[in-house]
Amino acid sequence: MTNLLYNLIIIGSGPAGLTAGIYASRANLEPLILEGKTPGGQLMGTTYVENWPGVKSILGPKLMMDMKDQAESLGCSFLQEKIVKVDFTEKPFTLWTDKNKKLKTKTVIIATGAVPNKLNCPGEQEHWGKGVTTCTVCDGAFYQDKPVIIVGGGDTAMEDASFMTKFTKDITIVQIMDKLTASYAMQKRVLENSDIRIMYNSTVSEIHGDGQTVNHATITNTKTGKTSQLPTNAVFIAIGLKPNTQFLQGHVDLDKLGYIKIKNGSKTSVDGVFAAGDVHDYTYKQAITSAGAGCMAALDAERYLTKNE
Amino acid sequence: MTNLLYNLIIIGSGPAGLTAGIYASRANLEPLILEGKTPGGQLMGTTYVENWPGVKSILGPKLMMDMKDQAESLGCSFLQEKIVKVDFTEKPFTLWTDKNKKLKTKTVIIATGAVPNKLNCPGEQEHWGKGVTTCTVCDGAFYQDKPVIIVGGGDTAMEDASFMTKFTKDITIVQIMDKLTASYAMQKRVLENSDIRIMYNSTVSEIHGDGQTVNHATITNTKTGKTSQLPTNAVFIAIGLKPNTQFLQGHVDLDKLGYIKIKNGSKTSVDGVFAAGDVHDYTYKQAITSAGAGCMAALDAERYLTKNE
Repeated sequence: MTNLLYNLIIIGSGPAGLTAGIYASRANLEPLILEGKTPGGQLMGTTYVENWPGVKSILGPKLMMDMKDQAESLGCSFLQEKIVKVDFTEKPFTLWTDKNKKLKTKTVIIATGAVPNKLNCPGEQEHWGKGVTTCTVCDGAFYQDKPVIIVGGGDTAMEDASFMTKFTKDITIVQIMDKLTASYAMQKRVLENSDIRIMYNSTVSEIHGDGQTVNHATITNTKTGKTSQLPTNAVFIAIGLKPNTQFLQGHVDLDKLGYIKIKNGSKTSVDGVFAAGDVHDYTYKQAITSAGAGCMAALDAERYLTKNE
Repeated sequence: MTNLLYNLIIIGSGPAGLTAGIYASRANLEPLILEGKTPGGQLMGTTYVENWPGVKSILGPKLMMDMKDQAESLGCSFLQEKIVKVDFTEKPFTLWTDKNKKLKTKTVIIATGAVPNKLNCPGEQEHWGKGVTTCTVCDGAFYQDKPVIIVGGGDTAMEDASFMTKFTKDITIVQIMDKLTASYAMQKRVLENSDIRIMYNSTVSEIHGDGQTVNHATITNTKTGKTSQLPTNAVFIAIGLKPNTQFLQGHVDLDKLGYIKIKNGSKTSVDGVFAAGDVHDYTYKQAITSAGAGCMAALDAERYLTKNE
């Protein structure tokens, strides 16, 4: 594999990466997709998706597996490894995987997405996956009739709170600001639901439990500094995302939050390197916008190859 | 209906318009979609679509009907009329339909798409739909074992020529330039197929027939001026698209080809008026990129409404 020169390597396998794979395969580029540690991306951690155009309701993981099947049937290759290092200074580009594979390619599409931010408070790491999580849809059902906390005030926090009303009537949103930042429609649904309380100007400053289950959290009022203890069995963290670009620092231009800067569709600061999806998009962050961006990146890569060969 | 004030009116019902409808409905905006003269957009004139992510193969019209069903089930309204006049100088905006309905709305998404260019040569109009057409997929099967001409040198012309090889071995591409402008992969497929001939530096300057069927075409060499007669029963025209923006001239900023100029996602030159799909995109023009753009426009409209209410 060391001597193989790819036309296109796609890093990431969410809606952006897989759509890029579908389009690039149909253009006979024989692309390789590096699936990374979380094949399928964030939709793998959802249940039903109702806003994928053309399908009234589909399980997120099913949609992603269908996309992978389609890319594979069109000739796309897959490798379940993660890229840990890149060299974009010389053409062809060189990529290294976490299993020490060295890959050579003429073009790259970066579609590595983003991961949720953490609180970094005492008790968080100790109880990670044991009461502390970011995924209501994955873990919500474990907390039937139990008190739960959602941390955050944006769209994701509102979605999480609404989702948890399926299971419990004891939901507290802990929001650091004096208002919610979610879109109007999302806020409205939460504010009109009497099962959801909101604590403003507040943070979760410590998570308590026995290492197997959470039993309460310390809430600190950010204005007064006063603390209070809130009984809870789950802390769902919904305080934004961090783009997966650590391995790219110094190799392509990133903004101050670490998102890839793009121009003219999908072009990065390096000629021949393209980006698609949540790794550059902090505005829309939808599966369908990522898929559209993946298509654009594949067409841009195809045109770049035609021009340079 | 005259006194009704909409949150959002979406003009157009292709992938961009319907995806905007799906997202806007889920955000409780109760949008109205003006379907126009060609409900479903350009995909209604296709057969199988193989690059819609998540579905290996689906009929274009079926995909569009599924999207419409989904938008409708989420609360989107539809009107099978065309917008012929707009007033964006005063808020709320005013739109007039071809059936003299006057509609008031707080925001607008323009997703009217584009239509194919014509040759404007003698015989074209006389034989329109009777041998002269833009849609191989619609009409190709009528020309089993017959000579056919494809006019153009871009991706669409290559697709059309490849498609026609299912039916006939007598295919001539007439291209005005001395080379093809299609992407590499598309060109390759055509150049490698011995059933397809290419006449460079050439135009179809007249189409001959009896008004019911075409029997030959005059080809003019653009370098020498010499003409020749080519037997053919069909002339498929694939020389680009014209955005459906005639009714918008003087109301939003258009570029010199008539495409809507956009900035920051989907914003036009008028605050509160957004655009999505082929009406602004002459680069990618795919169903999936249009759908992504429709989602962006709906989210932009929702945020605009939240900010301004």
